Amino acid sequence: MKTIGYAAHDSDAHMVPYHFERRDLRANDVAIEILYSGVCHSDLHTVNGDWGPQSYPLVPGHEIVGVVQSIGTDVTKYKIGDKVAVGCMVDSCQACDQCDKGEEQYCRNGLTMTYGSPDRISGDITQGGYSKHIVVREEFVLSLPENMDLSKSAPILCAGITTYSPLRTWGVKEGSRVGVIGLGGLGHMAVKLAVAMGAEVTVLSRSKKKEQDAKAMGALGILASSDEEAMQAAANSFDLIIDTVPAKHDVTPYTQLLDIDGTLVIVGQVGPLEEPMTIPLITGRRRIAGSLIGGIEETQEVLEFCAKHNVYPECEMINVDQINDAFERMAKGDMAHRIVIDMASLAAE
Amino acid sequence: MKTIGYAAHDSDAHMVPYHFERRDLRANDVAIEILYSGVCHSDLHTVNGDWGPQSYPLVPGHEIVGVVQSIGTDVTKYKIGDKVAVGCMVDSCQACDQCDKGEEQYCRNGLTMTYGSPDRISGDITQGGYSKHIVVREEFVLSLPENMDLSKSAPILCAGITTYSPLRTWGVKEGSRVGVIGLGGLGHMAVKLAVAMGAEVTVLSRSKKKEQDAKAMGALGILASSDEEAMQAAANSFDLIIDTVPAKHDVTPYTQLLDIDGTLVIVGQVGPLEEPMTIPLITGRRRIAGSLIGGIEETQEVLEFCAKHNVYPECEMINVDQINDAFERMAKGDMAHRIVIDMASLAAE
Repeated sequence: MKTIGYAAHDSDAHMVPYHFERRDLRANDVAIEILYSGVCHSDLHTVNGDWGPQSYPLVPGHEIVGVVQSIGTDVTKYKIGDKVAVGCMVDSCQACDQCDKGEEQYCRNGLTMTYGSPDRISGDITQGGYSKHIVVREEFVLSLPENMDLSKSAPILCAGITTYSPLRTWGVKEGSRVGVIGLGGLGHMAVKLAVAMGAEVTVLSRSKKKEQDAKAMGALGILASSDEEAMQAAANSFDLIIDTVPAKHDVTPYTQLLDIDGTLVIVGQVGPLEEPMTIPLITGRRRIAGSLIGGIEETQEVLEFCAKHNVYPECEMINVDQINDAFERMAKGDMAHRIVIDMASLAAE
Repeated sequence: MKTIGYAAHDSDAHMVPYHFERRDLRANDVAIEILYSGVCHSDLHTVNGDWGPQSYPLVPGHEIVGVVQSIGTDVTKYKIGDKVAVGCMVDSCQACDQCDKGEEQYCRNGLTMTYGSPDRISGDITQGGYSKHIVVREEFVLSLPENMDLSKSAPILCAGITTYSPLRTWGVKEGSRVGVIGLGGLGHMAVKLAVAMGAEVTVLSRSKKKEQDAKAMGALGILASSDEEAMQAAANSFDLIIDTVPAKHDVTPYTQLLDIDGTLVIVGQVGPLEEPMTIPLITGRRRIAGSLIGGIEETQEVLEFCAKHNVYPECEMINVDQINDAFERMAKGDMAHRIVIDMASLAAE
């Protein structure tokens, strides 16, 4: 199938229109017309080659919302016209213990990312959601609840599940004390999801600049990491901290905020952390952990959770030809919202 | 009560005989004649002032085995002649949620260490087990099972409980895959305890030099961290790693050895770790944690576990006048055993 997308042709992350082929439908494939595609900070890192060399041209995008356009002969879960979504993964081995548990993100044989990964059958490099169409095996296609606002749902597929999964893994419930470091794409979803779970949520940020935003999302407020007195007073007061900072940083001021047996979960920084002090870990059996997106079952769950609780990311809609500008703005700093490409704007090209 | 001990008089860690008073028995106190006192690497750090300034003269020692010499009027748990033990703590608030749970080591109001802490009533600085007698409130006195070998039991009170507690917290059982970094005082106890729990235990060490020791303790063998190929091959193969290294080090080569959802628990280093990479944490939801000794209930449990499973530290018995030499040897490197002072040697002074 012929389609069009926006691709980077080398590691300068400059995106230009790109005509390419989607594979012919295999028996278990679903072809999707993409309506909305979220823009994730990791798209920028990946096309830049920050996380390793890439194969170009590369079409990024792993927060995909659309409608089923056609289906393979064996597809039973979807029919033409269904509203569907695709997240960060499009395949895994489907045979290991992790896949059996619905934790395909930890597949023993390596997951196939939505873009930049070799397809498990053809070996062709997968291409992502900044495009008009995508073809994905049905096991990796999510169903969108009937009442969902499609225009705001795309970021749930990465920013949503990446924060929902650790909130669930570490048992957040009514009354849990949750801290969220950073109020960007991931951080603001963490706040909204934890609030919807009934948690008492505090945003941890350098300053209180975004406190109104945080409160509007249901947080109690911002604890400014620059305010040493306030940080001291908040010692031992969090059960879980979701750390969305996408850069090298010192976690020790935050581990000290955890209560005994509390956990700080890294979901932002891919690379080194500054030297952590062990004393807060030892003296309170505290933990530093990481977490990667979530499995397909859990991704379906977060979509239903968001539909039920009316939780949506703060979205700024752009046309596809604004993507380079969006990348530049994203590189400059975190934004308390997520950019979503209206893929209808690509039809006009 | 007049007694004699060995004390450091300043931060050069040189120990000399020291005559001092133990407090008169309070109603709930037990006076103990000390038979054996274990020598812990932390004794050296503490008297050296490595972990903060100390009040001198200071009598270290928190691995204490002895017999009850007299009891306060309200003591019900012990009688004269009972074989008893004292570990790292001699008091806590006994009123907070942690004390209620039997996790006095995480007491909200601060635990009273066996030496170097202000007594909660008198404010006098506590003095430890390198002495002929000690007076401790009965709640912090442990009972020694009848069949225990007293001469080898002292190190269970610190090296034993410090490794037993995380093995229990992280659910080690038959078939668990446990790694132990280091084969010193803590490490060799971790190996023996995990083996007795039915775990498959591997020692992680720079070289295979101590492999015979490790095997004699029930470990499968040594995985040498200097052998990159073997380290690669061992990726994802541990459920839990107990990290006893008492110095700044890089945990990343070890977090990569953890299976998905696995945990590395720091029990040795008090201070910074080298910059850890987040990738092994994120891509397998792995965790770095810390753990501090164990509660009184759990300390009683490990004593009974050791008696039942015939688990004892490898002990080298010394006379008290050899303590300075022992400190020097300890400072030079880890030993696959624990030094215990035969306190009978103090009577002769």
